[in-house]
Amino acid sequence: MTELYPYIGYRNGELEIEGVPASKLAGDFGTPVYVYSEGALKHWFREFDGAFSQVERLVCFAVKACSNINILKVLKELGAGADTVSAGEIFRALTAGISPEKIVFAGVGKRKDEIEYAVAKDILMINVESESELKAVGEVAKKLSKTAQIAVRVNPLIDPKTHPYISTALRTSKFGVPAEEALKLYREALNIKSVKPVGIHFHIGSQVSDVSAFGKAVKAVAELAGELKSMGVELLYLDAGGGLAINYDPKERPVPSKELARELLPQVESLNLKLILEPGRRIAGNAGVLLTKVIYKKTVAGKTLYIVDAGMNDLPRPALYGALHHIVPATAREGKTTMAGVVGPVCESSDTFAECVELPAVEEGDILAILSAGAYCFSMASNYNSRPRPPEVLVSAGKAKLIRQRETLADLIAREIL
Amino acid sequence: MTELYPYIGYRNGELEIEGVPASKLAGDFGTPVYVYSEGALKHWFREFDGAFSQVERLVCFAVKACSNINILKVLKELGAGADTVSAGEIFRALTAGISPEKIVFAGVGKRKDEIEYAVAKDILMINVESESELKAVGEVAKKLSKTAQIAVRVNPLIDPKTHPYISTALRTSKFGVPAEEALKLYREALNIKSVKPVGIHFHIGSQVSDVSAFGKAVKAVAELAGELKSMGVELLYLDAGGGLAINYDPKERPVPSKELARELLPQVESLNLKLILEPGRRIAGNAGVLLTKVIYKKTVAGKTLYIVDAGMNDLPRPALYGALHHIVPATAREGKTTMAGVVGPVCESSDTFAECVELPAVEEGDILAILSAGAYCFSMASNYNSRPRPPEVLVSAGKAKLIRQRETLADLIAREIL
Repeated sequence: MTELYPYIGYRNGELEIEGVPASKLAGDFGTPVYVYSEGALKHWFREFDGAFSQVERLVCFAVKACSNINILKVLKELGAGADTVSAGEIFRALTAGISPEKIVFAGVGKRKDEIEYAVAKDILMINVESESELKAVGEVAKKLSKTAQIAVRVNPLIDPKTHPYISTALRTSKFGVPAEEALKLYREALNIKSVKPVGIHFHIGSQVSDVSAFGKAVKAVAELAGELKSMGVELLYLDAGGGLAINYDPKERPVPSKELARELLPQVESLNLKLILEPGRRIAGNAGVLLTKVIYKKTVAGKTLYIVDAGMNDLPRPALYGALHHIVPATAREGKTTMAGVVGPVCESSDTFAECVELPAVEEGDILAILSAGAYCFSMASNYNSRPRPPEVLVSAGKAKLIRQRETLADLIAREIL
Repeated sequence: MTELYPYIGYRNGELEIEGVPASKLAGDFGTPVYVYSEGALKHWFREFDGAFSQVERLVCFAVKACSNINILKVLKELGAGADTVSAGEIFRALTAGISPEKIVFAGVGKRKDEIEYAVAKDILMINVESESELKAVGEVAKKLSKTAQIAVRVNPLIDPKTHPYISTALRTSKFGVPAEEALKLYREALNIKSVKPVGIHFHIGSQVSDVSAFGKAVKAVAELAGELKSMGVELLYLDAGGGLAINYDPKERPVPSKELARELLPQVESLNLKLILEPGRRIAGNAGVLLTKVIYKKTVAGKTLYIVDAGMNDLPRPALYGALHHIVPATAREGKTTMAGVVGPVCESSDTFAECVELPAVEEGDILAILSAGAYCFSMASNYNSRPRPPEVLVSAGKAKLIRQRETLADLIAREIL
């Protein structure tokens, strides 16, 4: 097989996902359709988790990256916990059978009902992001006669040099609190009976390839953890967040997770804390593709445009971040390649998957695969233009299983009151 | 009342939507919640439709702007048709009781099953955007033993000077075909028995405030219509699309629709064609608000941040286009105003409604209204971060009615196969 990514590549000119031809998947399930490889999910989980094997750790999958319960179940079997940011994500993790003591809950805007849900379910810890939230957690836990385990999310003031939309530790970021304020929050937490500080948390952003940014962040946080110890705060967990980049270009190689480990482990070992990690994109991003059919071929200003049946509602990253996803044909064709645009059917110019991509001669009816579509793709999908969302399929060792049905027209209006 | 927009303004310091206090709506329906004013919808429809009263016309509401069936019903009562871009939107329009002969269907990527649905329902016309699509319409209509009425969408090659994402008539746009190609398509259409060309269509973009762009476009299209007549193509309709801007700042005034009419009518009258218009944002944009609650107040880098319970999943325009929506408190407070940021709970820095907005002292628990949220807001909402989408409420003369229920956690996974 000519591999593009683990478990995804060409065999005899046919693109396969874990042994099943993409064209067969498109035929069986219709297009557009998201397809994930179980083998790839496991591969990427192990590549990541294994890099930290020398320490006690809990790898909490970032549910927002890829939320299907069947995906969560696959990762749970490998020991994964869940990094959640809403009651909905906690609900998903629990439904997938992930045990509450492996669930962490972050986010700047946790509503009281969400905190109550988290505390009632006895999740591992709530990563508190403001003084007001600390109070809210204390009140909710008191009301429920529980002790809520918390961490404070510290903003280590690091520029991770990624897209500004997914940088989360700049001085002006809404996330976390700076070190001096964190100390104050821990001091306050010691005085709230219904709250128990057990961890310290940071998260610098997403799709970060410069691992030295993690090293700088963990040093700042480790220093703070030292001060906390001298203050009498007995921490158990260091939650180093997620954010390790993937390669959106199959010709490149991703930063090995071991390099992240090299940045984090010295500090973690000297602190003797259990390490929590929150990879999302890193696990699922290159374990999924979006298959789409070419509806029409059109020449615009001398350039070929392939109009496909997937749109920005199905996969919003190009419209939202200007993200580039590689696009390849399900069936490799002989002959010379040309530069073409690939656009969706949605009535906005932003509904463009590629302005200019090198493709062999593609005909109407052909299937294209949009790669690196396992993370932040289906989870961001909408019904814009009243388009039902596509189905999701999980392929395991040559067998394809529908894990989410295609939405119907009736679904679009199911909650409307006629 | 101190009016911000028709039917939306302050009375005795309380923000009201068509006579109902925003704080009462937030209390009754929870937050976040979309609220529309029936009076405002009618006001804007009449302001637009009335500007064209001297000619025979059909105002087709752009369903993608605001798709709730109850909103469509309100507009249908005033005589509106529907501008649709998918089978889902045709389904919505029909469900709202809009008659097929008032429905037009545009879009660059109509699938065959969508064309079949449109032809089977005998809609007014399909706006064809490529040679391949013309063939597909012909084949489908033949199979159904129908005659499909079509228009060709002409790209008049006009820069409407709006956001590039919503400019649709640049030379490189995926939409429509240039004039010379349009002539060719009409010629081909004359040779397809199952297809009948009845109209000509153009649409230059969205949120266009320079009406002279419409004048230029209609001139180009009128010239083409003249040539078509001499070719023996008997047109009945000139579809001038939508795109007239609204004022996102309540202190400004929108371009009167009469100014658009002044640009279009001379050409329309000399051609003696029935005018079709496709306003969306113009009708619904300032007829709706999103009410949201301040969950936490936080100081970041010396600036106050209000963290609200609505996020980029509920209202994606700021994240997607960098759009600015004015934000006002439900209850006006005395005292001096400050500059503050308003951000949502979603775990991305792009989840920011305002970097810096002038607000009076706002406390946790207060309700804020995000204005101009009637178009391209709920229709673009997603479940990102596993957040159920908010409900929609329609206020008519002091009475509030739920027109779409809030989604539940169970809804999030309803289509997943466990």
